[in-house]
Formats: sequence, C-alpha cells, structure tokens
Amino acid sequence: MRILGIDPGIALTGFGVVEKDGTRIKPGGYGHISTESGTPIPERLKILYDDMANIMEEYVPDVVAVEEIFFNNNAKTAIVAAQARGVIILSAVNNGIKVVEYTPLQVKQAVIGYGRASKQQVQFMVKELLHLKEIPRPDDTADALAIAICHAHSVDAMDMMERKRI
Amino acid sequence: MRILGIDPGIALTGFGVVEKDGTRIKPGGYGHISTESGTPIPERLKILYDDMANIMEEYVPDVVAVEEIFFNNNAKTAIVAAQARGVIILSAVNNGIKVVEYTPLQVKQAVIGYGRASKQQVQFMVKELLHLKEIPRPDDTADALAIAICHAHSVDAMDMMERKRI
Repeated sequence: MRILGIDPGIALTGFGVVEKDGTRIKPGGYGHISTESGTPIPERLKILYDDMANIMEEYVPDVVAVEEIFFNNNAKTAIVAAQARGVIILSAVNNGIKVVEYTPLQVKQAVIGYGRASKQQVQFMVKELLHLKEIPRPDDTADALAIAICHAHSVDAMDMMERKRI
Repeated sequence: MRILGIDPGIALTGFGVVEKDGTRIKPGGYGHISTESGTPIPERLKILYDDMANIMEEYVPDVVAVEEIFFNNNAKTAIVAAQARGVIILSAVNNGIKVVEYTPLQVKQAVIGYGRASKQQVQFMVKELLHLKEIPRPDDTADALAIAICHAHSVDAMDMMERKRI
C-alpha cells in the first residue's frame, strides 16, 4: 500500500509517501509545494491543485492522508489554510483517490505513542521509523510523512481488530 | 457585465447572478447548491466544485464575487466553510473567470450604505434593488445576490474615481 501524507498550507504544503509492505514501512518520495505570498489567493489555490495532481500522477498513491486543521489563536491563518486543504482534498477526489483524515493528536499518538509529544519528537521519530539520515526539511515535509505513518499504523490496528473478531 | 455572487458553505452555497448595464442592475438566475450532512466531506467538496462549474457554464459570468469568511465563535464551522470556499474559488479559476472578494462589512455598506445593517435589512434591500416580488430563499441565495450587487456598486465607484482623475 502506498500512502501519500499531506500537511496542507497556502504558503507551504508538505507531502510524503510511505510504502507499507505488511507491517514494514519505508519512505517513498517527499517534498513540498510552495506558493508566493504576493500571488493572489485564487492563483495560489490553482497552483496547489495542479501540483497535487502532478504528485498523485507521479506516485500513484492508494490513499491520501490529510491532517485536520484546528483553530490555533490565528483565525485568519486557519481559514486560509482550510481553503488550501479543501483544494487538496478535491485534487485527490478528482484523481479517484480515497482520502482519510487524522487529527494532530492521532498523528502524535500513532508515531510516538504519546499525544502531547513535541513537534521535534515527532520529527525525530519520523527519521528513525523511516531510517532516514536526516529529518526532512522544511518541517511540513516531515509532518506530512508523520501523517502517512499514522495511516500505516492505523491500518495495522484495524487489521488486528478484524483478526480478533474472527 | 454579468456578476455571479456566491455565499459559500458546505451544506448550503447560495448563488445569484446580477446583470449590470451601465449603472442599472437587474437579476439573472439565482438559487443554491446543497450537500447532505451524512456525505463525507471529500465528496461534498466534489459536488460543490462540479455544481459550481455547471452554474458558470450556464450563466457565463464575467466575474465571480465571493464573501470572505470570518471566524464567528464556531471555529470548526468556519474551517469547514473555508474548505468549501477554496473549492468554489478554484472552480472559478479553472473556468478562467476572475474572482473578487468582499468582506461582510463591504457588502452591507454597498447594499444598504450602513455596515451595521441587519441580515434582514440587507435582504429587504436586495429585493428592492432587483425589483423582486419576494426575498429569495434560503437566506444564502439572497446573500449571494447581495455580494453580486456589492461588486456592481464597487465597479461604479471605481469608474467614478477613474473619471475624476481625467
């Protein structure tokens, strides 16, 4: 299973591919999309939509995992990020790819087993779990890989529950 | 000039077309798009995107005017509405139509000349200005027409400033 994790933002959207083979995971490609702050929002949304379509065409993921956006002191930032998130989800749907959503708490718990872990702890675990030499930069890229890992672990947990039922 | 005003929302998106001929305005079509609350968000975003594309194909507007979303006590609602708004703006851009944005304050000032006007006052003025028999329902449809009228008036104001410069 190939999972494309996405950390959405209007200025920077991180993406990271995780290959899941049984209970093993390994990194696929990762990187980020950036849009210039001087560019009007409609154009920035189109860049995001088109670039996401290209990334999905290149990596052909089975599923796209996106982090939920929470309001964090700056309503304007959250609202602009939500617009970007809507366009990214639409890009997946229009490419026929399933979308799953996780809260930041679920991502932390899945990657490090502790919902109050710091951003730095999560990023360190991403590096360890995927056997990378360095933590991917910018942060949004590492965060996108964390979201993909979260989905890989969630699928395992669901499989385990399925087996218990039998 | 044909202006398509949009009041974006995930459950209900109002749209309203205003034809501007010189300083005169008259109503074009108006209505709303609705999506079911039980439907997953990715599918609801796709419905909005596709329906908006159909509306633009039908009315061929010169410009799409969208109201800005402000945080109003319920962050979750604002964030979901912002996702819908992102998809609607993208739909316009992908159809090659210019997008303009107005704040709720600008809409009220343009329609009724008073930024603290109530929703009901604005809707009554929409009915009067467009010579409609009744206030269009649901509210989102009347609000969408108000946004289109706001742009029509803004264009007049800009024209006046241009003439003064000469």
